[in-house]
Amino acid sequence: LVACPVAVKAADPLPSWKDNGTKDAIMEFVAKVTREGGKDYLPPEQRIATFDNDGTLWAEKPIYFQLVYAVDKVREMAPEHPEWKDQEPFASILKGDPQKALEGGKPALMKLMAATHTGMTGEEFRSSVSEWLETARHPKTKKRYTEMVYQPMLELLRHLRANGFKTYIVSGGGIDFLRAFSEETYGIPPEQVVGSTLKAGYELRDGTPVLVKQAEVALIDDKEGKPVGIYQYIGRRPVFAAGNSDGDLQMLEYTTAGAGPSFGLLLHHTDSGREWAYDRHSAVGRLDKALKQAPEKGWTVVDMQDDWRVVFPFEK
Amino acid sequence: LVACPVAVKAADPLPSWKDNGTKDAIMEFVAKVTREGGKDYLPPEQRIATFDNDGTLWAEKPIYFQLVYAVDKVREMAPEHPEWKDQEPFASILKGDPQKALEGGKPALMKLMAATHTGMTGEEFRSSVSEWLETARHPKTKKRYTEMVYQPMLELLRHLRANGFKTYIVSGGGIDFLRAFSEETYGIPPEQVVGSTLKAGYELRDGTPVLVKQAEVALIDDKEGKPVGIYQYIGRRPVFAAGNSDGDLQMLEYTTAGAGPSFGLLLHHTDSGREWAYDRHSAVGRLDKALKQAPEKGWTVVDMQDDWRVVFPFEK
Ligand SMILES: [Ca+2]
Ligand SMILES: [Ca+2]
Repeated sequence: LVACPVAVKAADPLPSWKDNGTKDAIMEFVAKVTREGGKDYLPPEQRIATFDNDGTLWAEKPIYFQLVYAVDKVREMAPEHPEWKDQEPFASILKGDPQKALEGGKPALMKLMAATHTGMTGEEFRSSVSEWLETARHPKTKKRYTEMVYQPMLELLRHLRANGFKTYIVSGGGIDFLRAFSEETYGIPPEQVVGSTLKAGYELRDGTPVLVKQAEVALIDDKEGKPVGIYQYIGRRPVFAAGNSDGDLQMLEYTTAGAGPSFGLLLHHTDSGREWAYDRHSAVGRLDKALKQAPEKGWTVVDMQDDWRVVFPFEK
Repeated sequence: LVACPVAVKAADPLPSWKDNGTKDAIMEFVAKVTREGGKDYLPPEQRIATFDNDGTLWAEKPIYFQLVYAVDKVREMAPEHPEWKDQEPFASILKGDPQKALEGGKPALMKLMAATHTGMTGEEFRSSVSEWLETARHPKTKKRYTEMVYQPMLELLRHLRANGFKTYIVSGGGIDFLRAFSEETYGIPPEQVVGSTLKAGYELRDGTPVLVKQAEVALIDDKEGKPVGIYQYIGRRPVFAAGNSDGDLQMLEYTTAGAGPSFGLLLHHTDSGREWAYDRHSAVGRLDKALKQAPEKGWTVVDMQDDWRVVFPFEK
């Protein structure tokens, strides 16, 4: 047996996960719900798995990557908007202090989103995000943002799909932003992406039908908004949910309150060497209440440092 | 060849469609977009087909079936609401005149929807619809409403799916109402149903997480709302769209304005014998502008009387 480690490795669907209790719990859940005739068997149509994105599928430090996109867009658009020099949150962004820009809270964020995420057609917006993802680099690793994804989570997505699960993103991030890269990066098609949603308007521009992004919120897909988004977009309770912050508490709660077998996964960022270490005092991705509730709710807490052999694909 | 008609029949995926130009157009479209290496080939992920429901997948006369549900609910709930005797639209419904009740237009309709479609959890609502569908009967045919579906359209849905299409409902009807029967009746799972949507709230009832239907509109999935719903829920332009009224004009317009091959289908109700005959003067399912635009837009108009061997499954 020890003479053929390659063959053994090839058969392991989660090679970047260390062989410990966390991996065992995941493997056992997938095995039991797909065992035909078993008491925990779930027919394929019920195998719905939902994943948070920021901090669960890709990194979120030092700030949410979608915010970096918005900030870069403001800089790019600034020449056409001389008035931004005296208007927050734009003024601080243009002075190189995005942190201060965001001190304005939700109103500041909405102004930033309205300026950079609305007015154009859906296709124009997605092209703009795709182009940005080609050229932008993460300040710490100098990697593309789509390379800042977690290798163990890519393997988990693949393992679930190989076992008949439909994998979804359910993110507080913008649905159109996510749809620009979810298929290529995660193998998750646009119709399986749920995210915060701005209203859209249908119009004819030069006789061509287009959808135009509007500055009005249809759904904030965070906290209570996650089960609402799942209910609205998917219409079926998931049996597997993964998140990393208190924004995912209600999604995990809803998922694991179902009558049949279910799995709640909380990714705990404990790895200051390979990634970041943060939880209840972090402004981005705060994990406090959900971590406290995990034991009684039976959620599996993934300890990034202890449970993952590899964090990012580029480490391999 | 004439000696084995059974074998020939078995090979025909659309046996309830007459062998004429309409059927040829459908068959040829599916063949060309699935022919690998052909100039019109579409990879499977682009094979999105959207179907209107009322008047396209099931009948809609004398009134929308969902309205019959609402009217029946009002009658059932009336003992707990003595005040309805003096309040429209309830008073007219209770006097047996639902037509008059609906003369109040959108405000009357919203009152009716709020009373019968909100306040309960999503699961309670779906159970209520399922129970109603078991017992209610169509006033003309005395059949269940889920038997009032069009056999040729069921075959078309199956033929598209057999060729790698993802089939969706995109209906002006309520998304939760549709999801109560779409999987069993059409083979369309809840996550592939787009419909008019009321907002929902997430709460804990006796410690159990539930979604509660609210009396606030999130999406009216009709006319311009159809491409908006497609954009929001699916995030990808369909290549096949089927409808039967002016409410589907924008969905067909959006679908067939794509760069690649596409198919627009308009079902024209011309069969007063087996079903109903109506178009531009009908209050329910009015078809006027879309029918006029069909030739220039290249949409295929299905003539129910001329193109269908069978209308309902129970005729067979
Ligand atoms: Ca997160
Ligand atoms: Ca219709």
